[in-house]
Amino acid sequence: MNASPAAAQLLAEVKFDAQGLVTAVAQQHDTGEVLMVAWMNRDAITETLASGRVCYFSRSRAALWRKGETSGQVQHLKELRIDCDGDTVLLLVHQEGVACHTGRRNCFFRAVRAGSLVEIAAPLVSSEALYGEHTDG
Amino acid sequence: MNASPAAAQLLAEVKFDAQGLVTAVAQQHDTGEVLMVAWMNRDAITETLASGRVCYFSRSRAALWRKGETSGQVQHLKELRIDCDGDTVLLLVHQEGVACHTGRRNCFFRAVRAGSLVEIAAPLVSSEALYGEHTDG
Repeated sequence: MNASPAAAQLLAEVKFDAQGLVTAVAQQHDTGEVLMVAWMNRDAITETLASGRVCYFSRSRAALWRKGETSGQVQHLKELRIDCDGDTVLLLVHQEGVACHTGRRNCFFRAVRAGSLVEIAAPLVSSEALYGEHTDG
Repeated sequence: MNASPAAAQLLAEVKFDAQGLVTAVAQQHDTGEVLMVAWMNRDAITETLASGRVCYFSRSRAALWRKGETSGQVQHLKELRIDCDGDTVLLLVHQEGVACHTGRRNCFFRAVRAGSLVEIAAPLVSSEALYGEHTDG
């Protein structure tokens, strides 16, 4: 896929690591909820800007990861930002359903509270309903 | 520094990379603003939980980076969370002043809008007022 002028301008500012990847933080655009953190490569950024749906790069599968392609839990891109040194992308999105492969709305459901690590959110949907969703692990 | 029981319990769940680092996202606890993304190692997490002030690991300086130590732009920890696969930490903080070494409130001040990459926030303080602040670059 050819990068649009905006994508080309953006990609020139992104500092990819030795594996050609950049950290990507997905945030629900209206509530501010941090949904998940994953990775993108050049093609993932280009496709995301072109399609308006977030596409990551899965390190475990070494392939583009079109979020929600099989599960329906897609992320609609509202805005893409990069940080001061260009090594992180912030994706403002609208998340359909749940972001986490465990069935929780976001991946950050374990917190240190009152001296121990506790779960602070329960799954909203079963993992069976999330066919094809996975972590980037 | 010895890890507290809560820190030890947390550290057992964190999947550090080959360099002993984990991605850390700092978010203003009450507004949801994503302030910055940096890295932490085992000692940085232990110190942050013990002191209540966020300490990162600077890859460029290969040393602990006590955020705001010289500039005063410290981050007070409100809560620390980890994600489903343990490779990202979410820091809910109260940011004193500005998070970004450019003098902006957060590091994500460049966005793709209307077909080009534009600056969407101006510095609030001069870089001279931020002595010792730096990127993780």
